[in-house]
Amino acid sequence: MLRHKLSLAYDNAVYSLIGSLVKLVYFTKDDDHIVDSEEGISREKALGKSKGSRNYPVLNGRLNFKKFETSKINDCLQFIKTMKLHLGGNQQQENTGSQTTEIKATGGGSYKFADLFKERLGISLDKEDEMDCLVAGANFLLEVVHQEAFTYMGDQKQFVKIDQNDLYPYLLVNIGSGVGMIKVEGDGKFERVSGTSIGGGTFWGLGKLLTKCKSFDELLELSYRGNNRAVDMLVGDIYGGMDYSKIGLSSTAIASSFGRAISENKELEDYKPEDIARSLLRLISNNIGQISYLNALRFGLKRIFFGGFFIRRHPFTMDTLSVAVNFWSKGEAKAMFLRHEGFLGAVGAFMSSDKHGLKELLSNEVVQETPNKLSFAVDKIQVPIDVELNGDESIECSVYAA
Amino acid sequence: MLRHKLSLAYDNAVYSLIGSLVKLVYFTKDDDHIVDSEEGISREKALGKSKGSRNYPVLNGRLNFKKFETSKINDCLQFIKTMKLHLGGNQQQENTGSQTTEIKATGGGSYKFADLFKERLGISLDKEDEMDCLVAGANFLLEVVHQEAFTYMGDQKQFVKIDQNDLYPYLLVNIGSGVGMIKVEGDGKFERVSGTSIGGGTFWGLGKLLTKCKSFDELLELSYRGNNRAVDMLVGDIYGGMDYSKIGLSSTAIASSFGRAISENKELEDYKPEDIARSLLRLISNNIGQISYLNALRFGLKRIFFGGFFIRRHPFTMDTLSVAVNFWSKGEAKAMFLRHEGFLGAVGAFMSSDKHGLKELLSNEVVQETPNKLSFAVDKIQVPIDVELNGDESIECSVYAA
Repeated sequence: MLRHKLSLAYDNAVYSLIGSLVKLVYFTKDDDHIVDSEEGISREKALGKSKGSRNYPVLNGRLNFKKFETSKINDCLQFIKTMKLHLGGNQQQENTGSQTTEIKATGGGSYKFADLFKERLGISLDKEDEMDCLVAGANFLLEVVHQEAFTYMGDQKQFVKIDQNDLYPYLLVNIGSGVGMIKVEGDGKFERVSGTSIGGGTFWGLGKLLTKCKSFDELLELSYRGNNRAVDMLVGDIYGGMDYSKIGLSSTAIASSFGRAISENKELEDYKPEDIARSLLRLISNNIGQISYLNALRFGLKRIFFGGFFIRRHPFTMDTLSVAVNFWSKGEAKAMFLRHEGFLGAVGAFMSSDKHGLKELLSNEVVQETPNKLSFAVDKIQVPIDVELNGDESIECSVYAA
Repeated sequence: MLRHKLSLAYDNAVYSLIGSLVKLVYFTKDDDHIVDSEEGISREKALGKSKGSRNYPVLNGRLNFKKFETSKINDCLQFIKTMKLHLGGNQQQENTGSQTTEIKATGGGSYKFADLFKERLGISLDKEDEMDCLVAGANFLLEVVHQEAFTYMGDQKQFVKIDQNDLYPYLLVNIGSGVGMIKVEGDGKFERVSGTSIGGGTFWGLGKLLTKCKSFDELLELSYRGNNRAVDMLVGDIYGGMDYSKIGLSSTAIASSFGRAISENKELEDYKPEDIARSLLRLISNNIGQISYLNALRFGLKRIFFGGFFIRRHPFTMDTLSVAVNFWSKGEAKAMFLRHEGFLGAVGAFMSSDKHGLKELLSNEVVQETPNKLSFAVDKIQVPIDVELNGDESIECSVYAA
């Protein structure tokens, strides 16, 4: 199998949350080297690209996603070596070292291992701007991957069909340690318009201090089982159990997060960790949902996509965010999520490369001069859609010159 | 001295924060019973009301503000009794009990002491809607009190001259346990447009759990001395000490509140309480400032006035709020505060009454039939403007029929 186009991303948000995850995105061409025209056609059709002419090269293969914890960086290096991902273009032999391969990398930690990659693999990391990659990755996935975007509420996951011509502008909310809100108007056309410091780092940081949890996931687990009423002051607590309907607040709405922790003579030890975790999660999700919606309104953005470490496709987290957006928008807006949100940066870095190697592959494949422009078409997802990405997913995909 | 027009407010926000404060607002007429025409004129002039004609009754006196902690409710009752504030109209003799005096009251706790007032003073509390009173109080103070509104930044207090014809619409942000944001378009014309559950109750509740402080003021005291860098993750922490100028974030901006509490193997006990209190205050102030500004933008409101228990004219709190509004509005908006913000509800309740008693006073005063309409004119403040209201302030004021 011929492999190519390695791309790395050190997600800084994750880095600051649980120690970096290293994410790899790479393309592998199908072993079968013959371009199946029929397949070619069907794909073109599937992509609505069939214009009767199919006399352009098509490269069929897979886009692969892989994740490693920084603590297991050696496994990562070994994997790259074994898979020969560090070999440039379509070289088959080991890198002599006389020539170093450049691969794209992004994320706040992407210089952290620069030396290590150089020494061990002769790879020099070509650092790309984090936000550029984030947006490029989101745009790519939303444009070409079938069933990439979905809504999640009340345990109901619903895939959203997005007309490519109606995708922009949208708000990309990246929830890492902090939260960045990016107005995306097209490829390379984006602006960080807002954000909040109350993000995943706040959940994990405050949660760690309050519950003595040992990991982010443990804290999240706790929050599933908790009840925020023990800690939060609800509207009903203030208005004697009644709704304050005049201002459209139900008695169960949270009037003051952690507001109940003051009216009683209790110490931290007297509260259940799960109740505290639950209140914390709702505080943060509500707030992010509110500020996101206000910014979407401000800039007239029709969709809000949430991504970043804080979500990691955890159903409960997605649900609280969805409820928040629904509440603040009075049902007018919906929170949306991305199947591959954990790989936005890596995919973006992958797309940012000059694609030289792929061009080579293509030209070899179809014996013609290197095409100028490449397009990706992803028309099938291999894993069951409700399975969380475990880092070993690959997407069947076609690369063609356009 | 003839006293009249008692009004009470149980500030629910305070109630839920440190046990209720009972606030009294009442009018006392000057001992001197003769209307000094010259003074009359000068006041009219001062109020820009001189139209050559001054043949309407003027009643000179004081608007008094007094505060009691609920725990000292008996002192409050005794004060009312001693000052004969429980006597209706211009009665001089003790209430026979055959007739009960109605006085206006507001706030989530205003029914809590209803029985007590009935038994001890023969007063029945006439409950007014909290928000109605809040807005009526703010409108009154902003319209008639000289030097009521001010900005506060970098220890600089600056009074804002507001043209009465240019006052509306404005955003009133009431920071109690939770935060209510009210769009005010005129007298009785307002709407609660937004809010956040991250308010004073969150500061005190979380602060209590994290620092073991015994009082809200103690927690605030702590925050003055703390440094949030110990707990917050700054932009510089992520980008190797550099600004992320591309998105206009300085290296000292907070990237993740409490985000640093995760990257180290520290327990709650390993952090200084003052640093935690400081981070908490900044988290909450920043967030309120941001959401307030976004709502002011959304509804095209030119001014944002902050009030409520959380502020209580604490310089440091006002400063953090001002910095937040300044940051999020890129210097375009300024946080404003009210000298009497602690009494908004009580003043509103006071204004909501039919003013019957005052009308009586006036008609007695000037020997003519009871005027239909009354206006207040407040043209002088008795206390030094940089002194915090200790609950014993009184404002010289004129009541006249218009």
